[in-house]
Amino acid sequence: MKRLVAGVLLALALVACQTQPPDQAATGPVLTGPLTVASQGSFFLGGQDVRSDTLSNSARYEPSGTITNDQVYVHYQTPVDAKPASIALIHGCCLTGKTWETTPDGRMGWDEYFVRSGYPTYVVDQASRGRSAATPTAINAAKVGKSPPDQLPTLFAIGRENAWVNFRFGERYGEVFPGMQFPVEAQAEFWKQMVPDWLESLPTPNPTVPALSELSKRLNNTVLVSHSQSGIYPFQTVSLDPAGVAAIVSIEPGRCPAPTEDVRPYVKLPVLVLFGDYIERSPRWSPRLQGCREFVDATNKAGGRAEVVLLPDVGFHGNSHMLMQDRNSLEVAGWLRQWIEKHVE
Amino acid sequence: MKRLVAGVLLALALVACQTQPPDQAATGPVLTGPLTVASQGSFFLGGQDVRSDTLSNSARYEPSGTITNDQVYVHYQTPVDAKPASIALIHGCCLTGKTWETTPDGRMGWDEYFVRSGYPTYVVDQASRGRSAATPTAINAAKVGKSPPDQLPTLFAIGRENAWVNFRFGERYGEVFPGMQFPVEAQAEFWKQMVPDWLESLPTPNPTVPALSELSKRLNNTVLVSHSQSGIYPFQTVSLDPAGVAAIVSIEPGRCPAPTEDVRPYVKLPVLVLFGDYIERSPRWSPRLQGCREFVDATNKAGGRAEVVLLPDVGFHGNSHMLMQDRNSLEVAGWLRQWIEKHVE
Repeated sequence: MKRLVAGVLLALALVACQTQPPDQAATGPVLTGPLTVASQGSFFLGGQDVRSDTLSNSARYEPSGTITNDQVYVHYQTPVDAKPASIALIHGCCLTGKTWETTPDGRMGWDEYFVRSGYPTYVVDQASRGRSAATPTAINAAKVGKSPPDQLPTLFAIGRENAWVNFRFGERYGEVFPGMQFPVEAQAEFWKQMVPDWLESLPTPNPTVPALSELSKRLNNTVLVSHSQSGIYPFQTVSLDPAGVAAIVSIEPGRCPAPTEDVRPYVKLPVLVLFGDYIERSPRWSPRLQGCREFVDATNKAGGRAEVVLLPDVGFHGNSHMLMQDRNSLEVAGWLRQWIEKHVE
Repeated sequence: MKRLVAGVLLALALVACQTQPPDQAATGPVLTGPLTVASQGSFFLGGQDVRSDTLSNSARYEPSGTITNDQVYVHYQTPVDAKPASIALIHGCCLTGKTWETTPDGRMGWDEYFVRSGYPTYVVDQASRGRSAATPTAINAAKVGKSPPDQLPTLFAIGRENAWVNFRFGERYGEVFPGMQFPVEAQAEFWKQMVPDWLESLPTPNPTVPALSELSKRLNNTVLVSHSQSGIYPFQTVSLDPAGVAAIVSIEPGRCPAPTEDVRPYVKLPVLVLFGDYIERSPRWSPRLQGCREFVDATNKAGGRAEVVLLPDVGFHGNSHMLMQDRNSLEVAGWLRQWIEKHVE
């Protein structure tokens, strides 16, 4: 009888174990069922007033007046029983905060994942993109002949043929790396996420950087998670003022700070530079990885605790540049969550 | 003793009644405490591929390739125990879906109000605004000399000096109508919501209209709630295809359909045209109200059940054009919720 009871208990225990992978069962968030938040909403950071006589080139609207530009839109959700650290998610080139929402193939985005993990989560639209207004005055001035066309803003949209290669879906447009995890069957939905990029028409640092500093101070204890073209922003934010920044997570940055720069601002906080797969096969990304390795070495020599992690080295294979949308995006998020839990108070 | 018990019961009943206003207690949503949703996320509607050789005027980005434009971004939340009808919120001129989120003075937006009221709620960014990409090719073509500057898109931003009057904060910039409900102390946050408007560069109907039709069909039983410049969109959507549209709520429309148009598409569903206060003091808005009255009369003569409601006539005073952000915005939302409950299955 004792043996029977022990057998039943063992069987029950095994069934219990099989319902969730051990890691999730131990510490992971519940990813299905209703989501409860303590609060949600949106607001703007930064912004400055601009007076112009070329607000409009339409006969129906007054050309003179005052608008605000350089503001940064933020959407947030805070969980019930929130952890003490917050997370800010900052998208990259030619995209908006949509990057972190529902994936192109309809799965949960990192915005919801981190809320379900207990982190107040803030998603921004960079200055002059998405719900953060760009300024049309230079375009209107050219249209009405008040300024020459070469004074028009520098703008670019990225065509899918180039994005395909730059985002490492494959070596050439239409070709897919073996085992690549981006849901290419849903690519049409992904291309719709892309917006014109005003980056090169904006001052340095990008107005998003002081906005991130303002956000970090307001929230206190904030993990700045950047991607690609915004990869450098958390570093620039900390360089401007380290107040309120708990850690830097720079995902596939366009560049890290140069190793010859003053790295002292970065030695006092955890720094993670995270890359996906196929880096060595990409003439665009392999030198960027190398640059980040040099930066991390210089920072650690100065007493820092920075690290470069390649996802294949921690067991994830096939990740594209859009790793927050790849098929294994939530597993990667789970790894990042554990990194944050380990490194941030 | 009986009298004492009765007295205690009466006192308890009175205390219970005082915790919520009678109307809210009877049917209204719980507006405080955590929010639980069954699901949330975002996706795009519509969109078409465009091949161009002026995607970029930056030396760093390839000018040739394919992008998608005319797509419409949608963010949604669905409540647990959702009602059978959904609500789509469509912002107006020079704004984005932010219109319906947290008010400039930090109160709950209509997006959350209607979710708390049990309605799956969908917030769009109109085509070429916010997270719905505009197309930079004409700007780039002019900058690189491939097309003359008069081919630049027609763009406008609205200056606060004009917005103040058009949005009926007061008769002149800086002056406030007596009892006006817009939180002018938070105006700086409101000006940050404004974005350049590409409306006049887009085809007719605006690509947002077929996108709303696609959304209505997908959701089925959808109340289209438009505002100002988008006021006409639900009518154009129904004219295109009535499938899936449960009702039209047009808030302070820039125009209603002309009474001389074919009004037959509008006779089969409930139509509400809603205006705020001070209309008679506004040379911009009083003719628009008059036009909508004529449309409603024509629709009802043809067998419809359309109505124009002025908020002062149902007990709300001091509402500006931005009535979804006015100090009494949630009371107005409550009135609208009851209208929807009464008119939509």
